[in-house]
Amino acid sequence: MRAALYLDAGNVIVDDVPDPAITAPTDAIVRVVRACVCGSDLWAYRDTFKRPARSRLGHEFIGIVEELGSDVRDLAVGQLVIAPFSYADGTCPACKEGLYTSCPNDGTFGAPGNDGGQGEAVRVPYADANLVAVPDGGADLPDATLLSLLALTDVMATGMHGVEMSGATEGSTVAVVGDGAVGLCAVLGAKRVLGAERVILLSSHADRQAVGRAFGADDIVATRGDEALEEVRALTEGFGVRHVVEAVGTPSAWETALAITRDGGQVGAVGVPHTTPTIELKPLLIRNLGVRVGIAPVRKYIPDLLTRVQDGSIDPAPVFDLTLPLEQTADAYAAMDKREAIKVALVP
Amino acid sequence: MRAALYLDAGNVIVDDVPDPAITAPTDAIVRVVRACVCGSDLWAYRDTFKRPARSRLGHEFIGIVEELGSDVRDLAVGQLVIAPFSYADGTCPACKEGLYTSCPNDGTFGAPGNDGGQGEAVRVPYADANLVAVPDGGADLPDATLLSLLALTDVMATGMHGVEMSGATEGSTVAVVGDGAVGLCAVLGAKRVLGAERVILLSSHADRQAVGRAFGADDIVATRGDEALEEVRALTEGFGVRHVVEAVGTPSAWETALAITRDGGQVGAVGVPHTTPTIELKPLLIRNLGVRVGIAPVRKYIPDLLTRVQDGSIDPAPVFDLTLPLEQTADAYAAMDKREAIKVALVP
Repeated sequence: MRAALYLDAGNVIVDDVPDPAITAPTDAIVRVVRACVCGSDLWAYRDTFKRPARSRLGHEFIGIVEELGSDVRDLAVGQLVIAPFSYADGTCPACKEGLYTSCPNDGTFGAPGNDGGQGEAVRVPYADANLVAVPDGGADLPDATLLSLLALTDVMATGMHGVEMSGATEGSTVAVVGDGAVGLCAVLGAKRVLGAERVILLSSHADRQAVGRAFGADDIVATRGDEALEEVRALTEGFGVRHVVEAVGTPSAWETALAITRDGGQVGAVGVPHTTPTIELKPLLIRNLGVRVGIAPVRKYIPDLLTRVQDGSIDPAPVFDLTLPLEQTADAYAAMDKREAIKVALVP
Repeated sequence: MRAALYLDAGNVIVDDVPDPAITAPTDAIVRVVRACVCGSDLWAYRDTFKRPARSRLGHEFIGIVEELGSDVRDLAVGQLVIAPFSYADGTCPACKEGLYTSCPNDGTFGAPGNDGGQGEAVRVPYADANLVAVPDGGADLPDATLLSLLALTDVMATGMHGVEMSGATEGSTVAVVGDGAVGLCAVLGAKRVLGAERVILLSSHADRQAVGRAFGADDIVATRGDEALEEVRALTEGFGVRHVVEAVGTPSAWETALAITRDGGQVGAVGVPHTTPTIELKPLLIRNLGVRVGIAPVRKYIPDLLTRVQDGSIDPAPVFDLTLPLEQTADAYAAMDKREAIKVALVP
């Protein structure tokens, strides 16, 4: 079969790899229908992180169940399934409370040694615990529907997790720092899932602002740094916002997120802090701020979000502004690296 | 009148100072009945912070209203009152939501330029907003009652704030890192005010462990570092504690607090991080941890805690294990500096 492989920084290819095979009775083999490239896939591409040459790539995919291990009970061959970007055993105490990312047996698709989503097929461990079947789903669903479902594998659930970690509830005012796919999905989640009263999106790119508006952003702040802070203050009677989602992970995004948070408020951060290793405590102390930082336990969010996609109350598909064939995965990485696309879908 | 003054590191005296006088119509003059020394008073004493020579000291006191400005409505001369360690205007949006520490007109007793509690009398700004009258109170209350009320000016309310910031609720398991007066009060607050199911106190001093037990600690962990982590894990089926109060502020206390927090849990920190300026984000991300750090808006907590002291459901007085006359304030600082006393009360 064909799959995307990492060679070295800036160098991604599609090549022949062995077909996946059931190795444990709880495994499933899933034939990929749609995959995509994540902002975090760019780290190794940009040489921020190292990864082995010829390692498989991609952690986001939906597909059709092709084969099941003998212990899989809740799935059937032929079903369209959504895979959370990381898998877990589903039976440990962490999984039982929905914190799948703290499972002692968890793993991430596309991590070195694992199958990646950017390929024709994937072996999925603990299939019952991880794969969510789409009712009445199939590879023949409209492309927009498939893309909406694909968003649930990571960005929509991660955006929702950021909103939840910010402490926001129905009727809250929420600010989102970052207009990548996760930030845009946080807008959608805050407004259309949670029922936030008001959502302020910090975005300096016109195309992304448009998606943000469509997703329910009431206000767009297009400036950065001190100017952005002044704008947010002007929008909030000088106080800032009680619930802020940080969806970038860079020092400047953290700085802005904390600055625009109202005293007593909270930042929910899903931007992976690979360039922001630490934050200062003193400003938190004086202003009574909270921060929650967490990799999203996506599996927890999928069932509810799937219902909402299917009843039409949310449609995250517009975060995908380019679709390419799997063979052009290198172009997909390049487009995202150059910010020519928000997020690129891949069709095997 | 007589008051404690800071000269330089390790050098505190009691000397004559001008009597306080009403300077704004919202002021009150309070004749101090009991004051005390705070762990944070030791920073300048130990040269961690600089402060001006001959500045007034102390931010915790209760006393009798001696004189009132013309605009004070809710207080009467002769009342026994509790002063929160920091004052606020009581009218701004932050005050209205109980976040008195974010009031634009706030200040701390004993901060350079302000009257300090370690003296015979204090000018209190915005008296109506800050002073809480003790029903049936007077300077002739039993000493233990006066000390319980004195604890509400800071340590009991600060401990309670730490518990609240940890996200604990009735029935929670809570761990407290730090056996100073604030940590011990956090134990009391978690157990007797909030109704925590189980409270684990990390304390390596026998005398403080005894107070912790009396305050409701179910388990005492007397080790430090990795050993403490192992002990807490052994007490919690290997998972750690979901709600942790950090009541020290040092790097090792922060490290322990984060280490013993169960994945998905939260640290509520009231230890002022003067030696811990930053924390690392990556461990928070992987484990989905939250931290809330805040100087306590004490005034918010006083009415409820006062009711509980008066109905006998809490008695924080045992955090005071030494009482000295005001003239011996230097001895009080020395006793706390050498850890010969948990907290020293002063009687003018």
